[in-house]
Amino acid sequence: MKDKLESALAKGRKAAATGKVADYIPELGKADPNALAVACCDMDGQITAAGDTETTITIQSISKVVSLALSMIDCGEKKVFSAVGVDPTADPFNSIMRLEMRAPHRPQNPLINAGAIVVLSLLPYRDSLSRYEAVLDLTKKLCSNHSISSNEAVYLSEKATSDRNRSLAYFLRSVGSLEGDIEDILDSYFHQCAIACTVRDLAVMGATLANSGVNPVSGERVLSPRIALTLRALMAICGLYDGSGEFALRVGIPAKSGVGGGIMASAPGNMGLATVGPSLDPKGNSTGGVRVMEILSDQLGLRVL
Amino acid sequence: MKDKLESALAKGRKAAATGKVADYIPELGKADPNALAVACCDMDGQITAAGDTETTITIQSISKVVSLALSMIDCGEKKVFSAVGVDPTADPFNSIMRLEMRAPHRPQNPLINAGAIVVLSLLPYRDSLSRYEAVLDLTKKLCSNHSISSNEAVYLSEKATSDRNRSLAYFLRSVGSLEGDIEDILDSYFHQCAIACTVRDLAVMGATLANSGVNPVSGERVLSPRIALTLRALMAICGLYDGSGEFALRVGIPAKSGVGGGIMASAPGNMGLATVGPSLDPKGNSTGGVRVMEILSDQLGLRVL
Amino acid sequence: MKDKLESALAKGRKAAATGKVADYIPELGKADPNALAVACCDMDGQITAAGDTETTITIQSISKVVSLALSMIDCGEKKVFSAVGVDPTADPFNSIMRLEMRAPHRPQNPLINAGAIVVLSLLPYRDSLSRYEAVLDLTKKLCSNHSISSNEAVYLSEKATSDRNRSLAYFLRSVGSLEGDIEDILDSYFHQCAIACTVRDLAVMGATLANSGVNPVSGERVLSPRIALTLRALMAICGLYDGSGEFALRVGIPAKSGVGGGIMASAPGNMGLATVGPSLDPKGNSTGGVRVMEILSDQLGLRVL
Amino acid sequence: MKDKLESALAKGRKAAATGKVADYIPELGKADPNALAVACCDMDGQITAAGDTETTITIQSISKVVSLALSMIDCGEKKVFSAVGVDPTADPFNSIMRLEMRAPHRPQNPLINAGAIVVLSLLPYRDSLSRYEAVLDLTKKLCSNHSISSNEAVYLSEKATSDRNRSLAYFLRSVGSLEGDIEDILDSYFHQCAIACTVRDLAVMGATLANSGVNPVSGERVLSPRIALTLRALMAICGLYDGSGEFALRVGIPAKSGVGGGIMASAPGNMGLATVGPSLDPKGNSTGGVRVMEILSDQLGLRVL
Repeated sequence: MKDKLESALAKGRKAAATGKVADYIPELGKADPNALAVACCDMDGQITAAGDTETTITIQSISKVVSLALSMIDCGEKKVFSAVGVDPTADPFNSIMRLEMRAPHRPQNPLINAGAIVVLSLLPYRDSLSRYEAVLDLTKKLCSNHSISSNEAVYLSEKATSDRNRSLAYFLRSVGSLEGDIEDILDSYFHQCAIACTVRDLAVMGATLANSGVNPVSGERVLSPRIALTLRALMAICGLYDGSGEFALRVGIPAKSGVGGGIMASAPGNMGLATVGPSLDPKGNSTGGVRVMEILSDQLGLRVL
Repeated sequence: MKDKLESALAKGRKAAATGKVADYIPELGKADPNALAVACCDMDGQITAAGDTETTITIQSISKVVSLALSMIDCGEKKVFSAVGVDPTADPFNSIMRLEMRAPHRPQNPLINAGAIVVLSLLPYRDSLSRYEAVLDLTKKLCSNHSISSNEAVYLSEKATSDRNRSLAYFLRSVGSLEGDIEDILDSYFHQCAIACTVRDLAVMGATLANSGVNPVSGERVLSPRIALTLRALMAICGLYDGSGEFALRVGIPAKSGVGGGIMASAPGNMGLATVGPSLDPKGNSTGGVRVMEILSDQLGLRVL
Repeated sequence: MKDKLESALAKGRKAAATGKVADYIPELGKADPNALAVACCDMDGQITAAGDTETTITIQSISKVVSLALSMIDCGEKKVFSAVGVDPTADPFNSIMRLEMRAPHRPQNPLINAGAIVVLSLLPYRDSLSRYEAVLDLTKKLCSNHSISSNEAVYLSEKATSDRNRSLAYFLRSVGSLEGDIEDILDSYFHQCAIACTVRDLAVMGATLANSGVNPVSGERVLSPRIALTLRALMAICGLYDGSGEFALRVGIPAKSGVGGGIMASAPGNMGLATVGPSLDPKGNSTGGVRVMEILSDQLGLRVL
Repeated sequence: MKDKLESALAKGRKAAATGKVADYIPELGKADPNALAVACCDMDGQITAAGDTETTITIQSISKVVSLALSMIDCGEKKVFSAVGVDPTADPFNSIMRLEMRAPHRPQNPLINAGAIVVLSLLPYRDSLSRYEAVLDLTKKLCSNHSISSNEAVYLSEKATSDRNRSLAYFLRSVGSLEGDIEDILDSYFHQCAIACTVRDLAVMGATLANSGVNPVSGERVLSPRIALTLRALMAICGLYDGSGEFALRVGIPAKSGVGGGIMASAPGNMGLATVGPSLDPKGNSTGGVRVMEILSDQLGLRVL
C-alpha cells in the first residue's frame, strides 16, 4: 500500500504544480504550494501515509460535513433538510444569486457556504464558542485525535475579511431562511473552518464515514449509519463545489474538499482516503490531491460510481 | 390651481385605498394609510397645496437623489459614474442577483439601494454623522426649509432591521465595488432615509431641480444646471424602481418615489410637483400619489415625454 | 439650422470612427462605416439635413416603434400591454434569460426583440406578407414618403441567420406568451427590420411623434395623441437598448435606435431629429449618431429631461 | 428475489398515487397512471420482474444515456466533453437561462435537454433517420432486445409540440455551441425519446452499465468499461434532473429517469434495476418508481454512496 501511495504521489506532484494557493483569506496564502501528502485508513483502522504527512492545513469546507453531522444529531434530519436543500448546484460555493432568483429562497444544499451557515444556525448552543467547541469535539471523534485544535491566525484572518459570507448570512436572514445573531453564527463558522489537521486525520474521518459511522481506529460509534450515508451521498453530488461532476467522473467516490488544500474521501465499506495539497484549481479543489485520488481510485478499485 | 389640486386629490383617494403601507420597517407601518396630500411649486416659488398637507413622512429613497447630488458636488461626476452605472434595471430596488450575474459587478444606477450605498461611500466625510449632516444640509437647501430633521424612531427601526441592505453592502465590498466601514456607511444611509418632510418640502425640491438647480423660493443656486439635469434624467428612467416604465407612460415627468409614501416630481422649467400618500403598490410606489400625478400631468400639461 | 447641423456633424465624425458596423447579419456588414448624416424636421414640416443624406439604411429596431403603433391601432392598448410589459430592462436587446427567470414570463417591453415579436403576433393580418405590408404602409405615412420599400437582400440575410430570434419566439410560445405560426411571424419581423430609409425619412417620423401624431409634412393625422405619447415615453426609457440610461443623460429626448445605424428622436412639440451612422457601440447604438444628437440637443435646447 | 420485488411494489403503489402523468406532450398524457412495474437483471443475466411488466413506455430522457454512449463511441470522449460539461445543475431539465447567463455558453451536462441535443448534433450520420437508427440499434444491444422500436404517435406528438427544445437548439446555435440543421437534429431527438420499451428492457440496460459494458444476457461487449463508468458517474450526479440530490440520498445508485415514467438504475458489479410508473413528481421523476427503488436499494444492499 505504501508503495502505491508513494507512486501516486510522485505522479500527482506534476498536477500540484499547475494550481495556486488560495489567498482571498490572507493567512491561507502562506501555505506551501509544493506540499503534497496522501493517507488511507482501512476498515481495521490501519493507516498508511506518504509525502508531506506532517503538513498541517485548516479543514475549511471539510468542516461543513462535521457541522452537518452535528446538526443531524442535535436537531434531526427533518429539521435540517427543511432549512436547506439536498440539490447539487452549478454555482460557485459562495454564490448568492440563486437565493434571490428561485423560491424557496433557501440554500441548495448544506455543503455550499450559504447552506453551511444555515446549518450552523440551527445548532442549540448558547454562544459562538460552545457551538464551535461542539463541532471541534465531533471532529476529534471522527478523526480519533484529541489534540486537534484550530489555527487561531487563520480564524482571525477569515473573520476579518469575510465580506461574502456576511452578505450571504444577512441575505438569508432577510428572506427568512436564517434566524439568530449573524456575527455569532459566523464566528463559529470561521472558527470551525480554521480547525487544523493532517492528512492522517482526514483519512480517519473518511474511514469513519466509510465504516457507517464507527471510527475504525477508536472503535467508537460516532455517527449513526443513516447520518454516515447521508453525508456520503451529499459529498458524492456536491462535495467538490462546482467541480463535483468532474470528480465523479475522474475518481468516483464521495469526497469533500476545502480551500485549505485538503480532500477527505470515503470509499464505503472499504477505506478512508485523504490528500493534502494547497495548490488549487479555479474551482477551489486541490490539483495534486484530485490527481492522486484519481490514480489511487483506479489502482485500488475504489470507484463506486 | 388650488381647485385643480383639490379635484385631483379627490379622485386620487380611491387609488390610495388600493395600496398598502410599507411594514418591512416596523416604524413605517404606523403611517396613516388614508393620508393624501399634493403640492406644487412654480418657477416663481409660489407654492400651492391641498389635502393632508401637515402629514410628515420620511423621504426614504427620495434621499438617494440628494446624496447623489452631494456626491457629484463633492467627488465629481466622473468618479461617481465610474462607481455606479446609469442604466435602468428591471429588478426590485433591493435586488442583489445582478451584482453577481453580470460584470462589472457594480450597481446598475445610483437610485437603487446598492447604488445609493456606493454613492454614500464615496463622500469625503469623517464619520457617519457628518456624512448624514451633509445630506441633511443639502436637503434643507433643496427644500428651503431649515427646520427639517430626521425621524429618529424610523432611523433606529431601519437600522435595527435592514438585513438586506447589509447583505448588499457586504456583497459590494466583497467584489471590490465598495470600500470603507460598512456599518458606518449604512448608518448614514438609514439616517438620511429617515429625514422627515411634508409635501410642500418635496414640491420645492422638485422645483429646484426643474429650475436647473436654483431654488425658486430662496433664490439660491443649490445645484449646477448639469447636476440638476443629470438627476432629472436618472429620475425619468429609474426613479420609481421597477415601476418607472409605467410612470413614464402614465405621468411622463422625472420623479423619485420613496417607501415612506412620497413622490417628488420635476417638470423642467415648469414646476415641482409632490404627493404624499403612504399606501403603496407592490413595487413600492404610492398608489394615490401616482394617480394624482397622472391627473395633474394631464390637466396642467406637465408631460415632457 | 443648416450650419448647426453641419457643425455638429463635423464633431460627430470623430465618434463615428470609434464604432463598428454590425455584422451578425452578413448583409449589414456591407454598410459604410464612415457614413454620417443628420436631419431635423420642425413642426411646420420644414426639413433640414446635412452630411451623407443619400445614404440608405435599414431601420431595424426602429421598426419596433411602427409595429407597436400599428398593434395599438389594430388591437387596442389594453390587449398590447397585457401581452408585453412597459418596464425598462438591463439586459441586451436579444436576451432570453429573464423570460425564464421571472414570472410573468412575458417580454419586459415592446422595444426589445422578444417584445416586438409578441407585438407582431397580435396583429390581425392573414399572413406574413400582409402583416409586413401593413407595417410598411404605416411607415410610409409616418415618414410621408410613399416610395419606401424594404432591402430584400438584408431581409433574406436576416431571415437566414436569425437563430436568436427563433429561440426567443419558440421560448415565448413554450411559456404561453405568444401564439401563432412562428416562421410566419418572424418573416414579417425580418421583413420590417429591412425597411430602407434615409435620415430625412427618420426625421419626419420623429416629427410626427413630436407633433402628437400629425405628420407635419403631409398634415395627416397618422396616430392618436395617446399613441404618440406612449411611443415617446417608451422610447425615453428603453429606446436605446441597455444604453437608454446613458442616452437620457447625454441627450435627454425620446429616441429609438436600430443596428442599421439609424436613430430616430422626437423632441415633443419641437422637432424630429434623426441621424444615420452605421458604426455602432457595443450596445448597438450609432456612435456618431449619439454624439451628433448630444451636441444638437444642447445647442438647440431640445432636452426634455 | 421475486418476493422482494412484489413486496416493494406493493408499498410503492401508494407513492404512485401521489404523482401525475406528464401531459405536456399530448400523447404522453394517455399513459396509465396506476401502472407500476419493477425488474432486476443480475450479472449472470438472470431477470426477475414484478407488477405491470407488459406495460410499454417511451424511454424519453433515458435515451440521453444511449445517445451519449454512441457519441463517445463515434466521436471520442474528448470531443464530446468539449461540447458539453459534466457539471450537475440546479435548473429544470429544459432550462435555458444559464446558457445565456454564464460563459462558456454550453450545456452544463449531456443529460439535460440542451446537452442531449448538442450530443446528438455531434454524431456523424447523414440524416435524421440514420442518426436515430444508430441510437435505436445501440438501445437494442444494451437491452438485448432486437424487437425494440419507437412509438410513432408519441414521436409525432412530441415533434409537433416541442417549442422549448426548438428554443434551446436555436439558442445554442446562436451562441456557437451547436452546428447543423436544427430540425434534422431535433427530429432524431424526438424519435429517440419515443423508443418504446418495457421494464425488463430497462433492467438489462442498467445491468449492461453495471457490468462495465458487457451485456450479461447476450454476453456481448456493447460499451467499453470507460464509457460505462462515465455514464454511471453522470447518472449519479444528474440522472434525475434537479431531483438527483434527493435520489442520491434515498436510493444511492446511478440512475436515469424519463418523463415516460421509466427509471433505469445501475448498481455497479451487482445488478441493473428498473421501474416503470408513469405518475411523476413535479421534477419529472416517477413517484412510484423512486419509492420502489428506495425500498429495494435498502433491502438488497445496492447503495454505493
